[in-house]
Amino acid sequence: MQIAILLFDDLDPQDAVGPYEVLRWVPGAEVVFPATARGPRRTERGGLSLVADRTLAEVGRPDVVVVPGGLGERRARRDPAILAWLGRVHETTTWTTSVCTGALLLGAAGILRGKRAVTHWTAMDDLAQFGATAVAERYVFDGKVATAAGVSAGIDMALALAARIAGPDLAQAIQLGIEYDPKPPFEGGSPAKAPAPIVDMVRATLRELEQRA
Amino acid sequence: MQIAILLFDDLDPQDAVGPYEVLRWVPGAEVVFPATARGPRRTERGGLSLVADRTLAEVGRPDVVVVPGGLGERRARRDPAILAWLGRVHETTTWTTSVCTGALLLGAAGILRGKRAVTHWTAMDDLAQFGATAVAERYVFDGKVATAAGVSAGIDMALALAARIAGPDLAQAIQLGIEYDPKPPFEGGSPAKAPAPIVDMVRATLRELEQRA
Repeated sequence: MQIAILLFDDLDPQDAVGPYEVLRWVPGAEVVFPATARGPRRTERGGLSLVADRTLAEVGRPDVVVVPGGLGERRARRDPAILAWLGRVHETTTWTTSVCTGALLLGAAGILRGKRAVTHWTAMDDLAQFGATAVAERYVFDGKVATAAGVSAGIDMALALAARIAGPDLAQAIQLGIEYDPKPPFEGGSPAKAPAPIVDMVRATLRELEQRA
Repeated sequence: MQIAILLFDDLDPQDAVGPYEVLRWVPGAEVVFPATARGPRRTERGGLSLVADRTLAEVGRPDVVVVPGGLGERRARRDPAILAWLGRVHETTTWTTSVCTGALLLGAAGILRGKRAVTHWTAMDDLAQFGATAVAERYVFDGKVATAAGVSAGIDMALALAARIAGPDLAQAIQLGIEYDPKPPFEGGSPAKAPAPIVDMVRATLRELEQRA
């Protein structure tokens, strides 16, 4: 079973690494990191680079695709090579998945038409333009398409996906292996729970960064 | 403020990326990824490589140090250059931190003597040899040393650290930005909650992988 985690410039590294951390423990899984070219890809706002170990052309029939988001998602959405690859591999995948604003890339590739889907809470309104119905859940499975909410939700979605692929016992073992017994120090990890001034601050900051990206 | 996230071969990528994802949003933070040499470092069991952008010698006085763990931790623990660097930079850090078995690296560098600390649940017994007192919490702050439990606990520790560095409002904004409102699909993310056969399976698998590492 081949699992392909798409890389592109200025992606959010947690969007890729969270699902990787879970799915790499699926028995028999080979995880590859394709991009338009091999080599290091810088992640959003510099700092960390992740290395693409395959070109898109070298990954022709992955069983599972994971599409991360991040500030570079808008630019990736304008790259015909990425959209064509997504549309092509989706025809034969067992699961096509996204984390955070990676859902918008799936949408631009035509994969979310008529689907229920979720993305980062600041981008939920953008789903409709791709024919998707926005659902404010932590992750959404609709047919063979799974979408996760923002950034950290990729871990939850990947565990649910691992359960579907390899059974609940194995998924629970992975969750224990990564000691995923989360204890966030604050209540406000979603816009429904966070104080309004903090919601406004995050929305304004991300909008400004997106406009600069 | 300079934040240094140590890289070494066969580290666990989530141990590094989880705290990075949080701490990179601290205002004025410059995050660097030092290793014994610049360039790509493969993470445990192959697949993903993260790029070291500094040599250890180039990072002389970081304000915050984050030490990840993973299957490569034992080998890193035998590298005098890494231990010497940790001991040296710890003298002037504001915070010295670890995720998962990164605590054992701190221990080998003499940093945990007399401290309360935590590590991955399978490695808790190893803390005593370094003069530390094992405490089964999600993360432990003792003076300027903060240790996190296994893998995913680095996110929780980093949010608590961000609150200490930049205040609770900013930390809460970061938590909302990464939409950290976790919904693990299973209860068993810690050995106290998981069914015994799954605890045994994970312990046996990790022990075997460690012996091969």
